[in-house]
This record gives sequence, C-alpha cells and structure tokens, in this order.
Amino acid sequence: MSERADVRFDWERETRIGLCEAIWGEHKTAEQIAAILQQSAERQQRALVTRVTEAKATTVQALLRQQQLETPLQWHEHAHGLSYGVLPEARPELGEVMVLGGGTSDRTVASEAQLALRFHGVTAELMLDVGVAGLHRLLGQLPRIKPCRVLIACAGMEGALPTVLAGLVPQPVIGVPVAVGYGVSAGGRTALEGMLASCAPGLTVVNIDNGYGAAMAALRILQIQSVRTT
Amino acid sequence: MSERADVRFDWERETRIGLCEAIWGEHKTAEQIAAILQQSAERQQRALVTRVTEAKATTVQALLRQQQLETPLQWHEHAHGLSYGVLPEARPELGEVMVLGGGTSDRTVASEAQLALRFHGVTAELMLDVGVAGLHRLLGQLPRIKPCRVLIACAGMEGALPTVLAGLVPQPVIGVPVAVGYGVSAGGRTALEGMLASCAPGLTVVNIDNGYGAAMAALRILQIQSVRTT
Amino acid sequence: MSERADVRFDWERETRIGLCEAIWGEHKTAEQIAAILQQSAERQQRALVTRVTEAKATTVQALLRQQQLETPLQWHEHAHGLSYGVLPEARPELGEVMVLGGGTSDRTVASEAQLALRFHGVTAELMLDVGVAGLHRLLGQLPRIKPCRVLIACAGMEGALPTVLAGLVPQPVIGVPVAVGYGVSAGGRTALEGMLASCAPGLTVVNIDNGYGAAMAALRILQIQSVRTT
Amino acid sequence: MSERADVRFDWERETRIGLCEAIWGEHKTAEQIAAILQQSAERQQRALVTRVTEAKATTVQALLRQQQLETPLQWHEHAHGLSYGVLPEARPELGEVMVLGGGTSDRTVASEAQLALRFHGVTAELMLDVGVAGLHRLLGQLPRIKPCRVLIACAGMEGALPTVLAGLVPQPVIGVPVAVGYGVSAGGRTALEGMLASCAPGLTVVNIDNGYGAAMAALRILQIQSVRTT
Amino acid sequence: MSERADVRFDWERETRIGLCEAIWGEHKTAEQIAAILQQSAERQQRALVTRVTEAKATTVQALLRQQQLETPLQWHEHAHGLSYGVLPEARPELGEVMVLGGGTSDRTVASEAQLALRFHGVTAELMLDVGVAGLHRLLGQLPRIKPCRVLIACAGMEGALPTVLAGLVPQPVIGVPVAVGYGVSAGGRTALEGMLASCAPGLTVVNIDNGYGAAMAALRILQIQSVRTT
Amino acid sequence: MSERADVRFDWERETRIGLCEAIWGEHKTAEQIAAILQQSAERQQRALVTRVTEAKATTVQALLRQQQLETPLQWHEHAHGLSYGVLPEARPELGEVMVLGGGTSDRTVASEAQLALRFHGVTAELMLDVGVAGLHRLLGQLPRIKPCRVLIACAGMEGALPTVLAGLVPQPVIGVPVAVGYGVSAGGRTALEGMLASCAPGLTVVNIDNGYGAAMAALRILQIQSVRTT
Amino acid sequence: MSERADVRFDWERETRIGLCEAIWGEHKTAEQIAAILQQSAERQQRALVTRVTEAKATTVQALLRQQQLETPLQWHEHAHGLSYGVLPEARPELGEVMVLGGGTSDRTVASEAQLALRFHGVTAELMLDVGVAGLHRLLGQLPRIKPCRVLIACAGMEGALPTVLAGLVPQPVIGVPVAVGYGVSAGGRTALEGMLASCAPGLTVVNIDNGYGAAMAALRILQIQSVRTT
Amino acid sequence: MSERADVRFDWERETRIGLCEAIWGEHKTAEQIAAILQQSAERQQRALVTRVTEAKATTVQALLRQQQLETPLQWHEHAHGLSYGVLPEARPELGEVMVLGGGTSDRTVASEAQLALRFHGVTAELMLDVGVAGLHRLLGQLPRIKPCRVLIACAGMEGALPTVLAGLVPQPVIGVPVAVGYGVSAGGRTALEGMLASCAPGLTVVNIDNGYGAAMAALRILQIQSVRTT
Repeated sequence: MSERADVRFDWERETRIGLCEAIWGEHKTAEQIAAILQQSAERQQRALVTRVTEAKATTVQALLRQQQLETPLQWHEHAHGLSYGVLPEARPELGEVMVLGGGTSDRTVASEAQLALRFHGVTAELMLDVGVAGLHRLLGQLPRIKPCRVLIACAGMEGALPTVLAGLVPQPVIGVPVAVGYGVSAGGRTALEGMLASCAPGLTVVNIDNGYGAAMAALRILQIQSVRTT
Repeated sequence: MSERADVRFDWERETRIGLCEAIWGEHKTAEQIAAILQQSAERQQRALVTRVTEAKATTVQALLRQQQLETPLQWHEHAHGLSYGVLPEARPELGEVMVLGGGTSDRTVASEAQLALRFHGVTAELMLDVGVAGLHRLLGQLPRIKPCRVLIACAGMEGALPTVLAGLVPQPVIGVPVAVGYGVSAGGRTALEGMLASCAPGLTVVNIDNGYGAAMAALRILQIQSVRTT
Repeated sequence: MSERADVRFDWERETRIGLCEAIWGEHKTAEQIAAILQQSAERQQRALVTRVTEAKATTVQALLRQQQLETPLQWHEHAHGLSYGVLPEARPELGEVMVLGGGTSDRTVASEAQLALRFHGVTAELMLDVGVAGLHRLLGQLPRIKPCRVLIACAGMEGALPTVLAGLVPQPVIGVPVAVGYGVSAGGRTALEGMLASCAPGLTVVNIDNGYGAAMAALRILQIQSVRTT
Repeated sequence: MSERADVRFDWERETRIGLCEAIWGEHKTAEQIAAILQQSAERQQRALVTRVTEAKATTVQALLRQQQLETPLQWHEHAHGLSYGVLPEARPELGEVMVLGGGTSDRTVASEAQLALRFHGVTAELMLDVGVAGLHRLLGQLPRIKPCRVLIACAGMEGALPTVLAGLVPQPVIGVPVAVGYGVSAGGRTALEGMLASCAPGLTVVNIDNGYGAAMAALRILQIQSVRTT
Repeated sequence: MSERADVRFDWERETRIGLCEAIWGEHKTAEQIAAILQQSAERQQRALVTRVTEAKATTVQALLRQQQLETPLQWHEHAHGLSYGVLPEARPELGEVMVLGGGTSDRTVASEAQLALRFHGVTAELMLDVGVAGLHRLLGQLPRIKPCRVLIACAGMEGALPTVLAGLVPQPVIGVPVAVGYGVSAGGRTALEGMLASCAPGLTVVNIDNGYGAAMAALRILQIQSVRTT
Repeated sequence: MSERADVRFDWERETRIGLCEAIWGEHKTAEQIAAILQQSAERQQRALVTRVTEAKATTVQALLRQQQLETPLQWHEHAHGLSYGVLPEARPELGEVMVLGGGTSDRTVASEAQLALRFHGVTAELMLDVGVAGLHRLLGQLPRIKPCRVLIACAGMEGALPTVLAGLVPQPVIGVPVAVGYGVSAGGRTALEGMLASCAPGLTVVNIDNGYGAAMAALRILQIQSVRTT
Repeated sequence: MSERADVRFDWERETRIGLCEAIWGEHKTAEQIAAILQQSAERQQRALVTRVTEAKATTVQALLRQQQLETPLQWHEHAHGLSYGVLPEARPELGEVMVLGGGTSDRTVASEAQLALRFHGVTAELMLDVGVAGLHRLLGQLPRIKPCRVLIACAGMEGALPTVLAGLVPQPVIGVPVAVGYGVSAGGRTALEGMLASCAPGLTVVNIDNGYGAAMAALRILQIQSVRTT
Repeated sequence: MSERADVRFDWERETRIGLCEAIWGEHKTAEQIAAILQQSAERQQRALVTRVTEAKATTVQALLRQQQLETPLQWHEHAHGLSYGVLPEARPELGEVMVLGGGTSDRTVASEAQLALRFHGVTAELMLDVGVAGLHRLLGQLPRIKPCRVLIACAGMEGALPTVLAGLVPQPVIGVPVAVGYGVSAGGRTALEGMLASCAPGLTVVNIDNGYGAAMAALRILQIQSVRTT
C-alpha cells in the first residue's frame, strides 16, 4: 500500500472553521509529509508543516522536486516550519498580534506562532528577552504592546511572564509554556502549571511548546466579526 | 490588628484592565470577606465573591447586616457566588457567550462563568448535557451555538467536549476542566490534560473548575474593540 | 553459558489459552531473539516477534541463515515485527476486526495489532485518519465499521477517538493509547487516562502502544464460542 | 429554573448501542436523581443509578413517594446502587459472567458489576477471596471458572489477580483496579498500572472502581452475535 | 508506658546550632505536647509549638493548668502557634526581616514565620496583598522593603512573588510556597516548583507552608557574625 | 588538581559493616574509576565496580595497564561489572541464595546480584523465565527453590513475581523491580510500586535495577550469626 | 447472603510460610471483622487485626460478646490493633528485634511492628526520637542497638534514619516510611523514595506505614534456620 | 534578522541587585552565546556562561577569534563553564564558602558553584566524598567546616547530606539536589524532595543541579552588610 493511499486529510477545515489544516511534522517521515503535500498540490491548497528539522525539510524538498512540485515550498529556519503555496496577502483589518518571550530560548516556539499567523494573513511581531527577573524590560515595552489586539506570551522556567502581563493590560493573553529549563522545570510542566494557576484573571493557556495552537486561538479571536454578523 | 487593616485591595483593576476585582472566597473566612465588602461599600464599588458555601454566605450577610450594608448583597445558589452592588445593564453590543457542559455535574462551574459574565453586563446562556458519548445531542444544538461570539466548554471525565466542539465551529473555544470523576479522572487532571493535548487547533484552557477565569478570558475577547481604537 | 540454555519458553501457551507466545523484541538482543527462534524451529512452532527495528531484524535473519533456518522468517515493515513460520489460513468464521487510528502517526501500533491478528488467522482492516477534530471523517465511515465484530481504536494526543466511537456503535471497543504527542501528551499518558476516564460505557483499554495486547484481547473475544460449548 | 428542565438525557442509548443509560449518582444530589427518575417513569424506561449512599437512596425514595412513583425503585445494598423498573428476565443464551475479587474489600465494586449485568438480563456470579498471595485458593476454583464466557477480575493492592488469571484461562478477562490499599496503593493507581503493564497477553482494563464499566464491556462482548448477523 | 518516658528531646540544639528546638504540633496529641512542655518547665527552657489548632491549644493549656505550669503558655491566633516561656528581648543588632505575602490567604504561614523569629528576638514585619497580578502594589512598597536584611516571600497559586522580588532587590530572598489554590495549584506544588524554577538568581526555597523553616533560615543568616569571629 | 587527590573512599566499610565498598560506575568516567582502583591496589583491597559498559571497562583496563596494575581486573559480561582483586573462597556455611527473574530481559540485574554475592564468597544461582503469566514454570521449580536461605526476585512489567513467590515459601524474599517495560511500565515504576503494594506479607524491596543492593541485603541476612554472638 | 458465607480465609498460611494470617482492618466493617474472628474461634486459631480505630474495636468486642467469644480479644492502644487468642510464649532463641523511630509521630507504625512480632513470639524493643537532625541521640544508642539481630527503622519527613543507621551497623535494616509530614512529605512518598534511593548498601524497604509488613520480613529472617536444615 | 539584534540583555543587573548576569548556555547555540559575549566586549562587562559542553565552548572561542575578541575567554573544565573578562580580585572581607558533595559524581555541580563565586570575588573550597553512608568522613571534617560563613551542600541519591549537616552546625546551609541516581532517584527529584522535607530546621534549597543559583544565594547572604548600612 503506497503512503498516499492512506491519507484522509481534513481538506474542508478552512471552510468549516476558518483555519487551514496544518501538518504536525514531528512524528511523520519525510515521505509521509511529501505525500500529503503532493495532494495539496493537486487540490491547489496551501499547507503548513510544523516541527520539521532542517534535514527532514531538505528531504521533503528533494522528494517534491522529483515530482516537479517543489516551487512554492519554503523553509522557515527560526520557526522550524515548511510552508507550501504562496503566502496570502496581509489582512490589516484583523489587527496585530504581539508574540512575547521571556528569553532567547523561547524563539523557536514564538517564531512558530508568528509563522502560523502569517500563513493566515495576520501580522505578528516578536518581542523576546522581556522576562520578569528584570521587570524594567517589560515595563519599558508597554507602549509597543498596547495597540496589539491579542498577546501571545511564551515562557519557560517558572513561566511568570503571562501572569505579570495579564495584570498590566486588558487584551486577551494566551500563555505558551516552553520546554526550556532543567530540574523541576525540564519539559515545561512547571511553566504550564504556573500559567494555569495564575492569579491574573482571564489568562488562557495552550499545551507546552504549542506556538501553532496559540496562533490559531488568536486567529479565532481576530476572526470573530464574521461570527457576529452570522 | 483588625481584619480590615490588612486589606490592600486592587481597586484600580477595572480602570487598568477592564475587569472588576473578584474575591476568591474558598480560603477566606466570612469575617475576611465581610471586611473586604465593607470597603467596597465605602468606595461604592461592586464586588463579586466566588466559591462561597451557602453557610458562609449567610454569615457574611449577617455580618454586613450589623453594619446595615447588606442591602445589595445577593446569593447565587447555582454559582456558589455572592455579588455585592446592583448588577449592571446588559451590554448587547458585546455579543453573547454560550457556556456548554458535558453533564449535570458541570453545572456549578458553568454557572460561575455565567454569573461572572453577567456581573460585567454580558449575557451568557447555559447548555448542559451535551457530552460526547451521545454525540447527537451536541450536533442537534449547533444552530443555537453558531450565533454566539465566544464558547466556554466545561467537561469532567475525559474532557473531550471542547475538542469535538472546536473541530465543528470557528469561534474561540475556552475549555474548562471540571473536577468531576473518579479513579484517574478524580480531581479533573485528566480532563485538563486532555484539553491541552487536544488535536483540535486553537483551543485554549484555564485551570480546573475555573469558571470565573474562563468568563474573564471571554470578556477580554469581547472587549477587544476598545483596544483596536486606542 | 550459551544464550540458548537460558530459555524457559512458554511453549504450552497455545494449548492452554489459545494464543501463541510472542517474543517482545525491544529489550532483547538479536542473539537472544535468534536463540528463541531456533528453538521454535526445532519444535516446529510458529513465533511472532514484536518491536523489532529493521536493523535488528536483518541481524536476526543473518544469524538464522547461518543455521539455514531463515526460510520462513518474514519482516513486516509497517508493524515493526518478525514472523517465523507459515502464516495460518484465514478463519472467516471468527468474524472481522477493524483497527482504527486517529492519524497517520498511529500506523505502527495499528499495524502491530493487524499483524498479530493475521498471525492467528483473523482478518483485520486498517482505517486511519478518523480523528475527532474532523468528525465527519469518522461519521462517514460508520457503514464500513458496523459489520465488524470487534473494534480496536488507536489514538494519541487527547485520545478521544475510542470514546466517541463507543458512543456510536454497540461492539466491543478496545482503546489503544499511542505515544504520539508533545508536552502533556508526550509518552501517551494523557491518551491513556482519557480513555480510562471515558464517559462512554463499556470501553476497555490496554497499555500505551500495546497493539499486540489489543489484538490478543480481540482474539479472546472472537474465540469465545469454544468456551461456551465446554 | 427547575432541576427537571435541565435534563437532556440520552434515552436513545439502548436502541443505538444496546446498553441502558445509567446515572452516575456520586456527584448528583438526591433531587437531581429523582428528577431524572421521574422522566424515566414518564417514558416507562428502566434506569440504573450507581454510587449512591444509603442515605441518598432513602431521600430519593422519599422524593419519588411524593410523586407516587416509588414502587419499582429498589436499593441494592452491596452494590450501592438503585434500580428503577422491573428487572428483566434472565437471558441464559448470552452465557454467564464470573466476577472475581482478591479480597473482601473488593465486594462493592464486584457487586456493582454484578448488578449492572443483572439489570441487562445477564447472570453473574461473585467469587471473592481468591487473591494471589494464597494461590491455591484460585487454582482450586478453576473448574467453576472455566464454563463462564467472560471474566471480570477486581483487585486492589498490587492488582496481580487478573494477570495470573489471564495466564491460566482463554476467556476475555477484564481487570478492574480497586481503590483498596494504603501508601503507594492508596487510590488504586498501583493496581491499575499493574494491570495495564501485565505480562499476560490480551488482558484489558477499565478505570479504578469501575464495576459498571466492566459489566458494560462484558455485555458488549456477550451481545456480539447480533453484530455478526447484521 | 507513660507519654513522658518516651521523649528524647533535642535540648542541646540551641547550644549546638543557635536555634531553639520547636515542636511540630500537627501530628501530636495534646497529651504528647503537654508532656514535652512539662519537661521544658523542669529544665526552665522556652519552647515553641507550631501548627496547633485553637481546640488543641486549649486542651494543652488545661493539661498544664493541672500541673500549675500554664502561666507562661501563650496562644498566637494568627500563627496557629503556642509559645512556652517568656519571649526574649528584641535583638535589634541582628537587623530586621520582612515577611511578604501575595494575598490574605497567606497570613497563617507568614505569621508563623513572624512568631518563630520573635521567639528568637528578631523583629519581623508582615506585608500582605502584594501579589504580582497588581504589580503597582509591590513596586509602591520597595522603600519599606529595602532596609530589611532578609526577605521571606510567601505565595500560593503560581508563586511568582519571590521571583519578581528577587529580580528587584539584592537581599537574600527565601521563598515559602503556600498551599492556597485549587486545581493544579491545590496543595502548593505549583508554587513550590515555580519558585525552584525561578529565572531570578539566588532565590532559595523551603517546603510548602514552612513558615517556621524560613524563619530559621533567616536566623542562620542573621547570626552569621558569630561564625565569622570563630 | 588530579583526579586522585579527590577520592575520600570509605575503606573502613568492610570492618564496620561487613560489606566491601563498591563503586557505582554509571556516572563516573573511566579515569575516575581507574584512580579509585589504583588506590585499591596500594591498599591491597579488592573492589567491585557496577554498571560499567564494555567500552568503559576496556578503557579502565588500558589505564591500569599503563600502571602495570591490570592483572587482577576482571570484566563480567552479563553483570556489566568489573571486579578488582582475587575473588574470595566460597563460604558454604552462609547458605545459598537463589536469584529469580521473570524473563530474559531481567538477566543483567540478576547477574549483578549474583556477582556481588560471589564477590563476598556467597554462591547464588540464577533462575530466569519464571514469570507469572505461565505459572506452571514457577510451580515446577519449587523443589529447587526451597533449600535456598534467601530469595532475590527480579521482575519488570507488573512485577508480580515476588508477590506470588512470597505467598508460596517461607524464606526472606527481596524484590528487585527491573526497568523493563513500555508505556506505564517504562522505567520500572509500576513493578516497584506493585512490589511495595504486595498483598504477600513480609516482602521487602530495593530500588529499581538495584541488583547490587539486593545482594547486600541478602548478605546482611546471611551474616546475621556473627551479630547473635556479639 | 450472610457476611460469613463470603470468607475464604487463608487458614493454611502458617503451615505453608510460617506466618499467621492477619486481617487488615482499615477497609473492613466491624461486622466483617467479627465474622472472620468467629471462624478463628471455631478453628481455635489465633488472629491479628491491624489498623482498627478504637471505636471499631469496641464494636467488634460487642459483637463477639453476643456470641460469648470475646474473652481472648485484646485491644492494643498504641498499635491500633486487635489480637484474638492467647499470645504465644516468647521464643528467645530467635533473637531480638529493635524498632527505631525518628520522632514521637512514628509511634503507631513502630508499635504495629512490635505487636506483630510479639504475636509470633518475638521480643521487640521500641526506640523513638533518634532522628538524624540531632545525630548524637542515635550515636549514643549504638551499644543498645548492636546486640539486636534485625533492625526496623521507621521515619517520616525526609526518611534519612535508615540510611544513616545502615551505614553504621552490619545487621539487616528494614526501612518503614511513615506518612508523617506536610507539603512534599505529606503521605510518606518522600520518605519512601529517600529510603529506596539510599546510598547505604543493603537497605530494604516496605510500603508506607507498613509496620506489620516490616515485622513479617524480620520474622522470615529470624526463622531462616528452619530453612537451612530442610 | 541577525542573532545580535535580538538580545535585550539585563546589563543593569549588577547595579540593581549586586549580581552579574549569567548566560545559561544549555539551550543556546554557540552562535547565540558568541553574540551575547560580543556585546559584553563592547560594554566592557564581564560575563559568565554556565552549562556549556567542551565542544560548544570551542566553537564559541573560534567565533570570538574571528572578531579578535577571544583573549579574555576562559574554559573551566570541571564546572562546564565559560568566563569572559578578567576574574576579579578576591574579597576576603566577605568570608569563605564551603561547597560539600556526597560523592565524586557531584563534582560538576559543586564546581559550578565554586566558579560562580570566584567570578564575584568570593573564595570557595570544595569538599567531596562526605556522604552520610560513611558518617565518620563528614564528622572528621567539622573543624574545616566551622570557619566558613555559608555552606553549600550538593547531594544526589537520597540527598541526606544537607539535613545531617544542618543538624550539626549553625551556619546557613543551602542544599543543591544533584541529578545523580537511578530508579527512583534518577533526575534528582528524590534528593530535592528529601531536602525540602528535611527535619533539620532552617535548610533552604535550590533547583536540581543549580550550583550557580546556590552560589548567588550565598553571595546575597555575604553581601548583606551593604544592606544594613542603607
């Protein structure tokens, strides 16, 4: 049985809930990813593949080249992601998202969120190194933060950034725990539970390292107008 | 030192982030709650107390009566909450919220979310008994769900309701794990982790039984317009 | 002491409980596996080895070739398994089993179940990509599912597939949590506990990634007639 | 809003999957249970309520008496359950189930399984005190065990009973971990994980103390004939 | 054997390490506590009993009254502690300690630390309601915090207070996680791990609710001069 | 600072408690191990190094050869251990130990126990493949087990072997959980807790994979006569 | 069905493994306990019931009085145990056991071990308050400890007592973790894992609070002579 | 975007809290580390990088050499750290710190603490191999320990060293759990919880393997004089 025959992809997702289907690349082989992208090509749909190492991305690219399908495939280094198809026009009417991170080590997760938003036409800016151990860095950036409609806050270690942030500003804040740490914070559990236990009201949380999920949650919020008029 | 001297209440919260401060009643004595409400009375501010047993509520009421302050105090039986001050006018321009629950046992948490929204002028409807083991019940309610701007989905046991819901509709879905269960699901951990691990994109989650937090997250989303124009 | 002298294999298992002994290959060396298969050859018994990497399988094959015993050894790529001996005739009177999986990443586990059933003469079909985030995919396959006598449902992430399935159909459903996920779902614990906590009545569960065990549970069910007549 | 208006009961369950809906009584008030049973009365359906204390059962009985509906309500002391409606005729063609328990402390869980089966017309016998620390007790009972079509094995502490049993006999064995123990075995986790980790092939497991669930799994197996002929 | 014969109390502790022995009252009966205090009386040593409920304290008082030993016994309501013997003179040369708390619910733990310090002659001030969700409250108190030589920071929920504090000031900060919370923060684990995982350098931590231990750690620090001159 | 200067080895252990000091090799470099063995040579003491890979053993051997000290160094393949110095005469008056294991995968741990006993002059026999899923294998070996004075029972997966064994025979049984398994049994936790939770009276347990510790516990028991006469 | 009909008691245990069967009283009702003791009376066997509250013991006594069977029933206050039948003569030839405890709070567990040994004719002495935070207390008792043949060391909190003890003396040391503590040590887990992780060689461990189990392990060791001569 | 543009380093930390910022090297690439050190060079600030493998250190060195900035970069082999800039003069007026370790395997963590102190001008001595299983080793070193002002005690396995130490001497003791162990002690959790649960009063703890954090806590204590005079 060929790899391709297996795929029962959720092509109707965009129509149904306004989000493109994304392919979680971590537990898939390059062959499985290429088979899915080939179907995207046939249906002329864009596709986003997350959690791909550079080596796997190169193999996927080579496999599609054999089918002469590699043209619109793009590797996003910081986000560890692959996009297939032309990225859409920006939709400024939806507003902007700010993706904050406590330290340099949060960059991959933050970039995944940024890429996933850009893949849906939403502009998102990155603001790293605003961890709460040096509070003046965050306080000094509040003017840049205030005009954004949704905030995604990534943090490892004790994960206090989203809590402090949600106590300072009125926007929706989506916390993304990051698997950066050691000892009790290894794997991101402590950051996750710190965000869930937050004393700041109205903070919501996604799974550890789930930059993509935070972006989709932001997108659901930004696209809410279409709901109202239904 | 009297109880009252102790309180350093966050009275500026509403101005700063658009949410009224709420008093988490579970770990406070009736005397501590009454002391805080007395300050509310002096500042002519409304206040919401969550997680209060009926017995504790009655004691608070008696304590305030001694100060002739009990008039605007109201006990909300299903939500296990106390509100102090006249509830605000409804703000229909913000849109409606639907609070769903897998079973009858989710009602307290769902009602807490409903009360916290009403306390901020937002109308929220309850829809219980739509658990995924009898899927037709949820599918049959989709027409009522679709016009709502934000969905809050409460579930205990395996907590699959928000996952199935977020795969069906485009709105922001906030999952609230409920501490209803036994064995591996006792305490709500399994429901929480099931929601965080969800294969549905863009679902966000709050702490176990945190109906109030889910309501505040919904309120941040609904009030987003004011952010845009800033 | 030679490897072989060590083995006290449960050769009587098939007579006693109707299931062939299988060799769990993960924690055994190629030499240990080859020594056991050599005994199978001497006793003219079939044997199934699970959880073997391709490299280890190749080494086993080479070792048996030295003994001129490699002929009936077969490598099953998708299932990561080795079978020794001629596979038995199909036993259609036992009925069919359907092995479902939420996504492409569940294939190895699902294939292990399929292989273990085939090794006992039971036909099992694979149906992947029916995860609950796109519910229409599962609902559309119900007609194919209904004639099967036992259902094995493999799922990682939040593991909701067996719950939804067991709410829709009357057959025995055996849930197999799969170690596919990240953050809270890494290692398969969340899927496992979600299945155990299921609100659907009569769902049973096996250990994480235990496709073989699910197959043996299905086989016990299918062979139940022989019990009745005892 | 009255309690009754809330109920969206899954009345079609029996038609759909062949199992009567049961009411999990633990997290419900006597008033909520009575409201559901009142609907059962109107629809002339039987109902089973599990995990009810004697005190709660008495209150439910009193509430139904006010509606003159108490006649077919029956309290099952060992199983901590309430049945509403006349129990069905025995269906000997389905075969018998044996419910085994390691010790006296497993009786409540074992009796719940027995009651749930009887509620569907299946005869189940109880066999307690066959724990593996005194192995001769179990070995001496094998002749009584062998004619049963499905075995439900309840055990607390280290939970080894189902493992030993599944190594001795060919029938489907459903392990039910029981929350009997202290220290590492308090709450039933160790029994649960011991059953999942079992070295005996084809053992399946349900949630801790889930006698009802084990009974429904057995019922799905016994009713499999109807599937075959579809 | 009488209760008294059992006691092998560490009377030399003060000479050896400069800290009075304290009696952990939680798992002891009033009779056991009274027996120890009677020995204190005979040796003319002061004693501190922590974690005593008001009812148990009253019983201890009554038991000592029978021996005419109750005079110097004092109940400390906020700290849930009993002190036996005249409290020592203040030792201002050691410097002051500030005990901070995120919210009103941290008071018992903070008061235990304050009492244990006072029992050794150290003045400690309490500063509650400076949680990080309303950051201005803490920032406004920095001038009062700066002159203190050691800071003890108590916090439940996500436990971020000590992290933010240790990023702002140079003193030793001892974090005390408090068992105030629900869901993931119930029992104080999340606060504990958040403090251990802190991104602020040089924060140390004691066990959950261990106000007494934090006080003894502060005392070791304050008494360090005597070490230097040895 | 040379590696050697660091070592403050417990050379008096044998005199004090009758057990030779052993070197836990897992977290030490070959250089650190060689430095310790060099000191053994100077003091003319025997030494045992556990948990050494073959590669590390070879490096140690090479390092000692440079010092012309390698002669009495011996690599024990099955036990993954190194012994330095001539092994002592057998002490048959202490009695024999039997080391049992559920399956082939328990051999390394069982062999470590055997080697550590032999290093102290005690004869220990290995008996593998007596897991409880095929009970007849264990029952058939009881005559060989009965003359042994102490039993060490190694088991992974659900770890039921020591429980069943301790229910059958009167000797001291020391359970050794083995880190063999997957899913819930990965890492040996389930086996460990199953042994601790055992319903068989008088079973004691050591840490996961701690064959050496079990051997030392057996040795303490066998050497008990010298205690009596003191 | 009467309570009595249910009991399949392991009466042959003493013959088989030299230990009397004991009844774990915690999860049994007074009626269930009385029914078992009534059988003891008929068979003229002694019986030991552990983990009985004073109230339950009184009820059992009353129930047996109705049968005129209460004469040899004895309540042991410190051990929370009931013995039925005349306690046996002391067997000094087996040697003595010392039961040590870190603090006063370990007394119940230590007393249970003492009672269980006395029930089998073994003399055991109690030595409490020898915790490692005041090391001189333990060091001062070594002369009393040395003549004992087996040591049982009970400790809560961090559980370091058995580790320090096993480093000082050559006898078998059985660690009993005690559920005394708070925060991370609540429930006894930390003490248990500290004992299992011990750097002292040859320490073995039983379940939390399992004084009875430690006693039976000591008894197996003391009765080892009978094994030798077989 | 170049790596450098990203860095928002906390350069003011030393002025604010008296501790130099350190760079946690584990989750950063050599390129990210080099970019930060380049900024250090421009600002003429010293910098400390912890948790760097030798290979990564070499790459950083090569990258800085390209910028002709490598001169003051120094690799510290035992501590796995990099220092940039000239190490400061010793400040003997602050007093000395002793860093103790249970065994040879604690050396990396202990050395990290030593290096971090030296980087701030504080002299710290290492004392390894004083684990509690051979207590005489620690007791023999007390004279060397007593003159030190602060003690840092590193221990893996059961982590009892800081407990025993804090019971013997009056100084501040900072416990550092070390991730050395296997089975239940793998990863350092057991050592951590043992230290938190300690029965010795006034022991504080940092995260597993956090030698740097313990050093900064010691530094805060040693620098306390400047606080007093403020």
